[in-house]
Amino acid sequence: EPKEVTETVMADPLPSWNEGDVKHSIIAYVEDVTDSTSANFIPVFDRIATFDNDGTLWSEQPMYFQLFFALSRIKAMSADHPEWKNKQPFKAVLENDMEALMAQGEKGLVTIIMTTHADTTTDEFEALVSEWIATAEHPIKKKKFKELVYQPMLELLDYLRANDFKTFIVSGGGIEFMRPWTEEVYNIPKDQVVGSSVQTEYDYNDGKPFIKRLAKLDLNDDKEGKPVGINRYIGRKPVFAAGNSDGDLQMLRWADANTFKTMKLYVHHTDSIREWAYDRTSHIGKFDKALDEANEKKWTIVSMKDDWNVIYPFEKK
Amino acid sequence: EPKEVTETVMADPLPSWNEGDVKHSIIAYVEDVTDSTSANFIPVFDRIATFDNDGTLWSEQPMYFQLFFALSRIKAMSADHPEWKNKQPFKAVLENDMEALMAQGEKGLVTIIMTTHADTTTDEFEALVSEWIATAEHPIKKKKFKELVYQPMLELLDYLRANDFKTFIVSGGGIEFMRPWTEEVYNIPKDQVVGSSVQTEYDYNDGKPFIKRLAKLDLNDDKEGKPVGINRYIGRKPVFAAGNSDGDLQMLRWADANTFKTMKLYVHHTDSIREWAYDRTSHIGKFDKALDEANEKKWTIVSMKDDWNVIYPFEKK
Ligand SMILES: [Ca+2]
Ligand SMILES: [Ca+2]
Repeated sequence: EPKEVTETVMADPLPSWNEGDVKHSIIAYVEDVTDSTSANFIPVFDRIATFDNDGTLWSEQPMYFQLFFALSRIKAMSADHPEWKNKQPFKAVLENDMEALMAQGEKGLVTIIMTTHADTTTDEFEALVSEWIATAEHPIKKKKFKELVYQPMLELLDYLRANDFKTFIVSGGGIEFMRPWTEEVYNIPKDQVVGSSVQTEYDYNDGKPFIKRLAKLDLNDDKEGKPVGINRYIGRKPVFAAGNSDGDLQMLRWADANTFKTMKLYVHHTDSIREWAYDRTSHIGKFDKALDEANEKKWTIVSMKDDWNVIYPFEKK
Repeated sequence: EPKEVTETVMADPLPSWNEGDVKHSIIAYVEDVTDSTSANFIPVFDRIATFDNDGTLWSEQPMYFQLFFALSRIKAMSADHPEWKNKQPFKAVLENDMEALMAQGEKGLVTIIMTTHADTTTDEFEALVSEWIATAEHPIKKKKFKELVYQPMLELLDYLRANDFKTFIVSGGGIEFMRPWTEEVYNIPKDQVVGSSVQTEYDYNDGKPFIKRLAKLDLNDDKEGKPVGINRYIGRKPVFAAGNSDGDLQMLRWADANTFKTMKLYVHHTDSIREWAYDRTSHIGKFDKALDEANEKKWTIVSMKDDWNVIYPFEKK
């Protein structure tokens, strides 16, 4: 007499991830720590997941997307600054001379960022970013920047949230550059975005309160700044942390110091065809010391080429 | 032929609030802004509610509870500081001489706070606060400090959350003084606590990362600091804001500047029998300029004596 077999087929929570060790270890981790009978069970308040942004949730080549925003602001602002035509680093930007711009070094970039990111109110800055993100296109991919997010990571964010993880961005990028679009693009609320920031000042003029952005760094949310930012904004160590470069190493170590079972995940840019391939010697997203430490400590390393069957949402079949 | 009448009796979401204008206006506001057919509908991401802590969610007399924590720390630390016996403001604390302590003025209090709140790691400080909050008792009420929270405000927090508001604390008190117990006491996660903070520094010693608390102010989350803190941590204006003193005026104005329909609520300490009665001339929780502005702008003013049928949870029948 044949037995009746009831089979429940669970929908795959990570369809853009190829079957393999990485995908299986993510699912095994989540199933373990959310199982109330497991010795590794993590209470909901402690299910904190932190994600780097540039190179981890969206692309970062040929330069950080925030820099494209800054360059477009320089051009828009140049009408009021005729002197920029003959003054570096502005001259290089206005002439689209990337080589001359890079020759200005980090000091030139800081000038560009501060010039374009300060001396507005927070409301004005939000409007500028919102307009840019809605329309601006990547010069090589010919897609909007906000379309160049990684489909597998969107699925991972969803999967973690479906298991009561609270998902945060912890990025070296500007906090107020990201907040205007993280809700639409990642389903991550503004208050769950941690990033670099400028100092601000409250003013109350004629009964109209506003907050002014000053040309003075507040938090540099990169490297050692990531645990500091996590402590400031989140107040506890993550149990799940994902990054792609040496700038995330301190964040992953901070997660690793958690007393709960943790998962540390590195996205390795190995796909020169569908995205970009770079690591140890790259100026952007340098992944060298952290690659050694991740290997040594057996942290999870995602190969974009091998582990992802789709990179961007628009490629989905 | 009698008609069958189906009647649904909704449970009262605010049972410790007396029927009256204040209770009805709270419920009317929440029902209006969460009704998707209303012109005043607010999307979930924008349902941000911010609450002051001292005097708004728990008592603050005869002095801020955080100061009781600081004084107990001075006593615990005094064994390692024999010189404090003859040195103000420590001498006053060790001799329980509150008059002499107050004579040291704000400078004395800042010394007490910095001495007791810095030069630990964040993990050590959390352990100290956790131990204190679990055991310390209020000298007059003879209850644990964490029991001296307002039952009607706990109900209001629950009611707002049940309607998809995200509830935050925005307090002049120390962020790392509050975070160890806000989850248990208010059901508010650590990352939804905004408060005053000290600067911190990451260190990685022998493969063990830690964050050190420095004796240097980072954010003074009071008065003008409240909108700055809200912008830093939350990234959008609240639609609902509650406070009890002049120190909350800027936060309530910040909410008032929101383009969504907002509710601004002041808790007025009018109950000298069940709690304390104070406002315009009090050194703690001074409510003077803001009382005038709240009246003038018809913001909601809660009279603890008239609007609350219970003050503390342990009084519930
Ligand atoms: Ca990165
Ligand atoms: Ca207060």
